[in-house]
Amino acid sequence: MKREDLLAEPVLHMKLQPYMTVNQLIQQFSNSGCFGAGRLAAACGVFENMVRDEKCTVFLALAGAVVPAGLRSIIADLIRKRLIDVLVSTGANMIHDLIEAQGGHHYKGHWFVDDFFLYKYHINRIYDIFVPREDFVKADKILIEMFDEIAKEKQGQVLSTSELMRLIGSRLEDPKSIVRAAYEANVPIFLPAMRDSEFAYVHIVHAERSKKEKALLVDSFKGSSEIVALAERSRHLGMVVIGGGVPRNTVQHAALMADKGLDYALIITTDRPEYGGLSGSTPEETISWGKLKKKAGKVMVIGDAMIIFPIMVAAALERFGKDFQRKGNP
Amino acid sequence: MKREDLLAEPVLHMKLQPYMTVNQLIQQFSNSGCFGAGRLAAACGVFENMVRDEKCTVFLALAGAVVPAGLRSIIADLIRKRLIDVLVSTGANMIHDLIEAQGGHHYKGHWFVDDFFLYKYHINRIYDIFVPREDFVKADKILIEMFDEIAKEKQGQVLSTSELMRLIGSRLEDPKSIVRAAYEANVPIFLPAMRDSEFAYVHIVHAERSKKEKALLVDSFKGSSEIVALAERSRHLGMVVIGGGVPRNTVQHAALMADKGLDYALIITTDRPEYGGLSGSTPEETISWGKLKKKAGKVMVIGDAMIIFPIMVAAALERFGKDFQRKGNP
Amino acid sequence: MKREDLLAEPVLHMKLQPYMTVNQLIQQFSNSGCFGAGRLAAACGVFENMVRDEKCTVFLALAGAVVPAGLRSIIADLIRKRLIDVLVSTGANMIHDLIEAQGGHHYKGHWFVDDFFLYKYHINRIYDIFVPREDFVKADKILIEMFDEIAKEKQGQVLSTSELMRLIGSRLEDPKSIVRAAYEANVPIFLPAMRDSEFAYVHIVHAERSKKEKALLVDSFKGSSEIVALAERSRHLGMVVIGGGVPRNTVQHAALMADKGLDYALIITTDRPEYGGLSGSTPEETISWGKLKKKAGKVMVIGDAMIIFPIMVAAALERFGKDFQRKGNP
Amino acid sequence: MKREDLLAEPVLHMKLQPYMTVNQLIQQFSNSGCFGAGRLAAACGVFENMVRDEKCTVFLALAGAVVPAGLRSIIADLIRKRLIDVLVSTGANMIHDLIEAQGGHHYKGHWFVDDFFLYKYHINRIYDIFVPREDFVKADKILIEMFDEIAKEKQGQVLSTSELMRLIGSRLEDPKSIVRAAYEANVPIFLPAMRDSEFAYVHIVHAERSKKEKALLVDSFKGSSEIVALAERSRHLGMVVIGGGVPRNTVQHAALMADKGLDYALIITTDRPEYGGLSGSTPEETISWGKLKKKAGKVMVIGDAMIIFPIMVAAALERFGKDFQRKGNP
Repeated sequence: MKREDLLAEPVLHMKLQPYMTVNQLIQQFSNSGCFGAGRLAAACGVFENMVRDEKCTVFLALAGAVVPAGLRSIIADLIRKRLIDVLVSTGANMIHDLIEAQGGHHYKGHWFVDDFFLYKYHINRIYDIFVPREDFVKADKILIEMFDEIAKEKQGQVLSTSELMRLIGSRLEDPKSIVRAAYEANVPIFLPAMRDSEFAYVHIVHAERSKKEKALLVDSFKGSSEIVALAERSRHLGMVVIGGGVPRNTVQHAALMADKGLDYALIITTDRPEYGGLSGSTPEETISWGKLKKKAGKVMVIGDAMIIFPIMVAAALERFGKDFQRKGNP
Repeated sequence: MKREDLLAEPVLHMKLQPYMTVNQLIQQFSNSGCFGAGRLAAACGVFENMVRDEKCTVFLALAGAVVPAGLRSIIADLIRKRLIDVLVSTGANMIHDLIEAQGGHHYKGHWFVDDFFLYKYHINRIYDIFVPREDFVKADKILIEMFDEIAKEKQGQVLSTSELMRLIGSRLEDPKSIVRAAYEANVPIFLPAMRDSEFAYVHIVHAERSKKEKALLVDSFKGSSEIVALAERSRHLGMVVIGGGVPRNTVQHAALMADKGLDYALIITTDRPEYGGLSGSTPEETISWGKLKKKAGKVMVIGDAMIIFPIMVAAALERFGKDFQRKGNP
Repeated sequence: MKREDLLAEPVLHMKLQPYMTVNQLIQQFSNSGCFGAGRLAAACGVFENMVRDEKCTVFLALAGAVVPAGLRSIIADLIRKRLIDVLVSTGANMIHDLIEAQGGHHYKGHWFVDDFFLYKYHINRIYDIFVPREDFVKADKILIEMFDEIAKEKQGQVLSTSELMRLIGSRLEDPKSIVRAAYEANVPIFLPAMRDSEFAYVHIVHAERSKKEKALLVDSFKGSSEIVALAERSRHLGMVVIGGGVPRNTVQHAALMADKGLDYALIITTDRPEYGGLSGSTPEETISWGKLKKKAGKVMVIGDAMIIFPIMVAAALERFGKDFQRKGNP
Repeated sequence: MKREDLLAEPVLHMKLQPYMTVNQLIQQFSNSGCFGAGRLAAACGVFENMVRDEKCTVFLALAGAVVPAGLRSIIADLIRKRLIDVLVSTGANMIHDLIEAQGGHHYKGHWFVDDFFLYKYHINRIYDIFVPREDFVKADKILIEMFDEIAKEKQGQVLSTSELMRLIGSRLEDPKSIVRAAYEANVPIFLPAMRDSEFAYVHIVHAERSKKEKALLVDSFKGSSEIVALAERSRHLGMVVIGGGVPRNTVQHAALMADKGLDYALIITTDRPEYGGLSGSTPEETISWGKLKKKAGKVMVIGDAMIIFPIMVAAALERFGKDFQRKGNP
């Protein structure tokens, strides 16, 4: 490599002006090309490419309490426009979607509070969000009834988490719900750790009041074969990660088990690689496992997903233009 | 509160000398009482207290690739001495334990490498650890056979992850294995996201070569009732967290579902609360949910568990003295 | 406080659309009000308020390599519009401004490189930026000449860093330069650690070739009285921090020495408070010292300033409208 | 490179036992060799090597509030044993040493407090440390008198920060003081941003009550030539960094200006490289600038210096044995 090749592209300093659009700002980030600005600009490009790739099945892996905090509509809209094709989530995010689907709310609170005071007031805290316990109770009640009803309908049939989420989605009315939108758009929702959430409580109550034999039976491994089959049917694979954890690992592992590497990987996280955890691992590391292709479009943006993800989506929407609707895959 | 109460305890500066023991160092950290040193010293106290509390069931929640990186023996020893009573883990950490139980190894590698080069060499990277693919393959093969055998034995009976881990443990010989130690010491291992790991691949191959009906059926929710029952039977509850994620949430949620708060909570993590994720949430926040008691012994140590956890355990072992053996709970 | 007061304001989920402006996006962040989105929306409000406050002297404290990475024009424009009144910076950022003022450049590079290879190629790396050594050499040469010239002109007079920066600014031609813009707009530049930068080398060479007695004499403490006097003359004080370190501390300490607390504090950083360093300390902590008023508008945004700062400025420009020009203080 | 070379050294799992010494624990960390444990074990080796290297001048670069939090005696002892030869610090850390040298104290406090309440109580907070304002006032008073006295003695002579610190050290009695120990051991203390601390206030009051011409004149740049000369006289250069910021940069830049690279670099920090700031930059990046030699012993430990630094020093003291006294350099 020649020296001049290393010094080919000067940093252009960002210029700002009133009324610039989000995508115009991203262009300025691209002019800089450095540090977080460079990474975010690159992320917008990777997202644009994976969505424009008509052969690509786009997985959104979702961890962290981003649904209660305000990303619910963005995700539901992405599903309806089929900018994403598969959702892999923590159980908790779907519970929070369902709480709102049943009329519950999350509230702007504060982190500097006496938590025992909140406890006595029946208010659960998620950093600076407050959730009244009665909204959990209401959602629990409706979900338990749904579980009863589904169990009766399915008569001991073994379900996967995605089948169960689809059955729940079909019973919802709230058009703003992620679970409902996924049902309507035929986007499967995988919850590889479904029981690690309020769904566990729902199932326990449901199972106790059913005769045990008739309680819903959710097969831990059924979702594995489903997601692998889905990856096998896909021609290209793209992954967008918010947070990391089980959802990210599940998508990557599905690509591996389908004997395909991901073609696109976009990771938004605050974790870093030096502690060795999966959530902070670089896209490059993923190549060694065969989970990501060598030539994949890939970028890791370090930052709060509540800031980064909306910017990226807004920039992409601008690039796609009004009325953009994707066909969806696979 | 009077001013003098706020200025009651001066920082004493640490003194170091050759040949000091780990616990003597922690005493110096306690003299400082500030920043990370104060938190680590407090953590040693909380850990000591929960282990000395004869009524306490101690849960270890394990996330991050700490087993491949060198904590395997420490955890197996803790189990044998019953310093912990329940293990809740990611699937991956148990897979890495099983890889070594089958004669495989993890290797000291480097993070500054060409990952595509590793890929071609069939070497998987975990930050600065290298794992040869053949060791995965060997473990897969043996696990698939175990799954076949267990399926035949259990004849369609529905299992929980802890039952399955116990059956695997009973088939192992390596005394250094965590899974074996847990079997011998009657310590249950819960894997709330078992399928999010190489176990998924193992199950897929096993299921394909079994007649489908006879494949192992692991019930997603069965572990929930087991862990809740276990928490209900416990008089006190203690939690030690490495990392966070699904394992931490599962333990906290079990305490809630058992309608008891945790009495002790010790969290070692590099996550921070400001992004709203569970892994970084403070013990205080956990109080608002009723998952942690108001007066619980609690501390969050921010740092690499590969450093913090061994220090804490070494200090505790020194406090307990040689030949300390705990009876275990519940 | 009543329970309903804690549950007064529900999180409104963000809605995105093509062609939305940066400020419209910030409104959506404000609807969420949580986690990083809430903090960034609040930051825009604090910045807007301090700029609209006609009595407020706005200090920008600048650390981190953000000038080489692309914020140069934004800062120069803020100075020209007098959205900031005082700049307190590391020496390095001003050196990088001067490198470009002399025709040098910073280049988009990569962090995954062999640094010894770069060394042999005479390329200095700043994470993913490359700076050719000859651009340093060229800037050094011109700065040494300026130092010689200024020393001759000033005849042994003792200077402060802000006086020296002003004399340098007066000698520049590049209208895009921060140092030039500050000269033209009468915005003082304080460099409390000036010698901790290439200026040290410049001064050494200058001093060696001058007769020692005639070398420029920059008084370490002269800037302290200047900045305190400036704070005393100001009716309100506002602080915007990128990074932290010496620049942040200098501004806060000036407010204290002037026996005034800051009225506005906006901090963009990736540091966290738990390690006890100044850069990560919360605005709240600053209140205990009397450096920040109890009722001050204050917010700390955790994130990469290369992303956060431009968003905040773009949103503010939109709120102020085209052709907004501030008078400036004190 | 052959595949077997990549798989040469298996991770050995740590074994813990009661009464193990700190250095024995580090040996276990070395057996793992991974993640933070590997980095910390490597750091102990680098520190041992630089201290054992009889030609090496060891610089300690000190940022962050680690002196108030309990590292004062460790640093003073390192100076007396000449395990370090040069101290480069923030002003604040020396102020806190001087507060204690005048009988003041720092107190164990808490971070979850009402800071305005502390303000009214005249208590300054540094995360979870409380400092009573009267201890600042007492130190201020004595320092102002010292400044008066030194100014009279020096009669307008221009001083560097290290000369001034030496003159202050000579006037102290507290044997536990860092500044006193440095004076006795002939270890220079450089404060490249001296004015960014309470020293600024001390100087302002001193200057106001002196006739201006007789006030102490501290030359910003004099320290630069001193530290460069010191580096030039040194045969090898070693750097230990706590935190980063101006102190780290000053040491690295001195090595560059002396036209020598550092031979050893050991950095303890919580900053990361991806944001582009100096504090988080890798030792490797430092090679591109010529500030660090290609073959230098180098390691960056990510973590709280209040934990990492004492461990590392305790392990080193054990390796050196009792009564180890280094001659010192240059």
